[in-house]
Amino acid sequence: MPVDQSLSLNGRSIIGFSDSSDCHESSKAIDPSTGNEIEPPFFHASSSEVEWAIQLASDAFEFYSKTSGEERARFLEEIATQIEAIGEILTPRAMQETGLPEARIKGETGRTTGQLRLFAQVARDGSWTQARIDTAIPDRMPLPKPDIRSMLRPLGPVAVFAASNFPLAFSTAGGDTASALAAGCPVIVKAHSSHPGTAELVARAIQAAAEKTGMPDGTFSVLFGGGRTVGSTLVAHPLIKAVGFTGSTSGGTALMKIAAARKEPIPVYAEMGSVNPVVLLPDAVAKQSESIAAGLHISATMGVGQFCTNPGVVLVKSGDAGDALVRSFTEKMGETPAQVMLNPTIQSAYQSGVSAMESTEGVATLVSKAPDSSGNSCLGATAVFETDTTQFLSNETLSQEIFGPGTTIVRWSEKSDLLQALERFEGQLTGTLHATDKDLEEFSEALPILERKVGRIVYNAFPTGVEVCHSMVHGGPFPATSDGRSTSVGTHAISRFTRLIAYQDSPQSLLPDELKNGNPLGLARLEDGAFVLGS
Amino acid sequence: MPVDQSLSLNGRSIIGFSDSSDCHESSKAIDPSTGNEIEPPFFHASSSEVEWAIQLASDAFEFYSKTSGEERARFLEEIATQIEAIGEILTPRAMQETGLPEARIKGETGRTTGQLRLFAQVARDGSWTQARIDTAIPDRMPLPKPDIRSMLRPLGPVAVFAASNFPLAFSTAGGDTASALAAGCPVIVKAHSSHPGTAELVARAIQAAAEKTGMPDGTFSVLFGGGRTVGSTLVAHPLIKAVGFTGSTSGGTALMKIAAARKEPIPVYAEMGSVNPVVLLPDAVAKQSESIAAGLHISATMGVGQFCTNPGVVLVKSGDAGDALVRSFTEKMGETPAQVMLNPTIQSAYQSGVSAMESTEGVATLVSKAPDSSGNSCLGATAVFETDTTQFLSNETLSQEIFGPGTTIVRWSEKSDLLQALERFEGQLTGTLHATDKDLEEFSEALPILERKVGRIVYNAFPTGVEVCHSMVHGGPFPATSDGRSTSVGTHAISRFTRLIAYQDSPQSLLPDELKNGNPLGLARLEDGAFVLGS
Repeated sequence: MPVDQSLSLNGRSIIGFSDSSDCHESSKAIDPSTGNEIEPPFFHASSSEVEWAIQLASDAFEFYSKTSGEERARFLEEIATQIEAIGEILTPRAMQETGLPEARIKGETGRTTGQLRLFAQVARDGSWTQARIDTAIPDRMPLPKPDIRSMLRPLGPVAVFAASNFPLAFSTAGGDTASALAAGCPVIVKAHSSHPGTAELVARAIQAAAEKTGMPDGTFSVLFGGGRTVGSTLVAHPLIKAVGFTGSTSGGTALMKIAAARKEPIPVYAEMGSVNPVVLLPDAVAKQSESIAAGLHISATMGVGQFCTNPGVVLVKSGDAGDALVRSFTEKMGETPAQVMLNPTIQSAYQSGVSAMESTEGVATLVSKAPDSSGNSCLGATAVFETDTTQFLSNETLSQEIFGPGTTIVRWSEKSDLLQALERFEGQLTGTLHATDKDLEEFSEALPILERKVGRIVYNAFPTGVEVCHSMVHGGPFPATSDGRSTSVGTHAISRFTRLIAYQDSPQSLLPDELKNGNPLGLARLEDGAFVLGS
Repeated sequence: MPVDQSLSLNGRSIIGFSDSSDCHESSKAIDPSTGNEIEPPFFHASSSEVEWAIQLASDAFEFYSKTSGEERARFLEEIATQIEAIGEILTPRAMQETGLPEARIKGETGRTTGQLRLFAQVARDGSWTQARIDTAIPDRMPLPKPDIRSMLRPLGPVAVFAASNFPLAFSTAGGDTASALAAGCPVIVKAHSSHPGTAELVARAIQAAAEKTGMPDGTFSVLFGGGRTVGSTLVAHPLIKAVGFTGSTSGGTALMKIAAARKEPIPVYAEMGSVNPVVLLPDAVAKQSESIAAGLHISATMGVGQFCTNPGVVLVKSGDAGDALVRSFTEKMGETPAQVMLNPTIQSAYQSGVSAMESTEGVATLVSKAPDSSGNSCLGATAVFETDTTQFLSNETLSQEIFGPGTTIVRWSEKSDLLQALERFEGQLTGTLHATDKDLEEFSEALPILERKVGRIVYNAFPTGVEVCHSMVHGGPFPATSDGRSTSVGTHAISRFTRLIAYQDSPQSLLPDELKNGNPLGLARLEDGAFVLGS
């Protein structure tokens, strides 16, 4: 049955098919546009509730990990349907909790349901398992060759930490949840305290989908909790086998430390900070100054700059053409009104970052508005700073992220300065080049540096707008993420929550369908060294 | 040119195309069959030599990471050819350093060269890169879809720690080196102090192959060193991007800690300990008692028990059929002469493990010979212990590895005892079942437990003998390995030393060939969601 449209929030953690609120501590969401609390209170999960959710997930794993790709596909598709069914109550609640406009929430809902359906396709197809078969050669000399078959199998229960900046697409039913569920792993989400109502609504949609499609109790839970206790307990628990996280560097590295210190260390996929350097090369600037400035302005202010792929540092050659571009960009940024940020914590961190830049030696402030002292204190005003490569290279805080609509422009003169500045960056989600063919030839040394530093190289476009598709990589070397081998967006993400298992001389009846003779699932697999496509 | 057949060892670290011995500290290999030192001394790498090798590897990365799969294939094939060319000096030296017999060293050489050639095939084919293309849809509403392409690219310089128990196949030109070089990563090997001469000979073969096939200086280095200083320095160095290790749990976890504490944490693939539980189910035992006992004896004593996949714990049902099997196995083990172990450290650890078992309450010693007090002290004598599930469940040391030809038999009565005992195991490389169809039906609960615990499930065979092929998984959950998502044997291993990179709207000329339009390399890739096979 569809979720009840008149559903009212009850603020209780959702543990499998049950609700629970052992604990009397609670907190409420805050409407960032007014600063007012929003009803109802959300009860923090108690340690026994955390334990219950984990035990249930671990019990569910045995059955859930053995469901077919088709069964998981139907579950994911039903989640998408259930989320769509509550659009009328979900959209206003998400808007109220995040300050994000209706079009963005609706667009993000579409992205979230599209992502669930894409992972459903991947689960149904089954080729993601990297099934491989090497058949036996019983008379091989000097020793017989056994029959070996292997594939990716789900790791176990996964803890997912929702992000504040994408209350749907990187939250309760976001990419980590979709990919873990698609792989066959039960999921326990630690809801973000910034949008608990949105989390509860989406969790009920998932709960309803799990019941409707016959998934075991405990396949999915959501826990509410203030502070870091619930999250730390989850990550430290022996039955949790992997962690997905999107958020701050301090939060992500804290989880990495807990995971590494466990008796059995587990993988943590934390997506943390990034300044997403944008390199504007001179011939492109000479030819496209105005359109680059306009595109950069849109990218830098989209979502009040609260995107992981926000272009935080832009490298522009000194000289007239660059000056014109900077002038145009600065003008647009100056005219952009302050907008409501996601929550007071993010707003105050942004304001501190801006203030620190304003008083940094060798940094000129091109745009910066005084914080609003009357009325709403959660507004984020655009800021633009300018410096040069000498300053940039001597002060490593200039390559650190200021999460929000602030951009630092770094002017360079010689190619060698640009290359040195690129070398200075730590791992990044993206690196962008605006370049003509002439630029690419002249600055060919820039590309291998970017390749070492980033997860995605963007040509003549902007880093925001992360396409959900098979080839997307939303990852990058530390500290952009905890594990640069992987991606949190796109279908490659399904392999994060898996490990390889081989079956030697297994009876056909005990093999997963992916590995059976005759390729009953019709998937792409490697048979005796040759790729074959299924039906 | 082929390696000079009259090559004499000089004991100097091999740093790219140079030799070096800054440091006056040195150590010699020991012939475990006599206890005598073997000439020449091997000079420990100084800190400046370690730094030199790392800088050279980092410089080499820029070129080497851009070589084609075909170029790397020729390099790997040339390494195999060069190793074959020095067989006449390599075999006796390896025998002398390890105590292993000629047939084993020759067999292992063949496995090593076969492995290099298999990775050459994989590099040449290119499908391992998981190339994916999503083409642009410029008129998509509301936003254009960009062109996104992604593939696995090499991580950077890799530190490889050679294992003592496979002086060729898991050492200087072993699986980790072959897979890292195939992926496009320069390699620095920390030679195992137990077979430095073998390491130098193989390193010279790799050096000759690198020169002959035009690989950059620093693509490959070998460092000698006593203690853990050289290794720790390698793993802590910012320019090292991944670690491969095969050895003890203490060694592996020490490297994991160093890697996790770095400013930029890096992946460590450590293959550590495993007892490889073998479950003998009653109907199989009733029907195949003698052949199981014979096969188990061969598996347990192969290589003097010094295999990662040695069957250390065997679970046998109590009763007559099981008694007969245990009697037959015990008899064969009792008749097996003591043999030379790899080195005194391993021998003394084995002897301590055996002595501890002999004095463990509730454990019966079925076979154990007094250590040889005269003559060669490096002999490993077979040992067989017997206990029951009650003892096994109450004493966790009984599920710990004793590296060598010792086997612990655990007798169980009820199915529930067996399942509880299986639950007790930590992560394992392998789990083996001897079972008829009737057994598999009756004990169906055993399989999901094993699936959670191991990297490879073996039916009606034995865990030793790890086939090098596409589908092999030689891995398993911690503590069998540091990272159960991966394998150290078989072609899947190439992806360990890689990360995903995406290219958005890239000019064709700047794309790797794997991602170009028209599929010039003819590899299997995913194009707009559909698998295609190349030419």
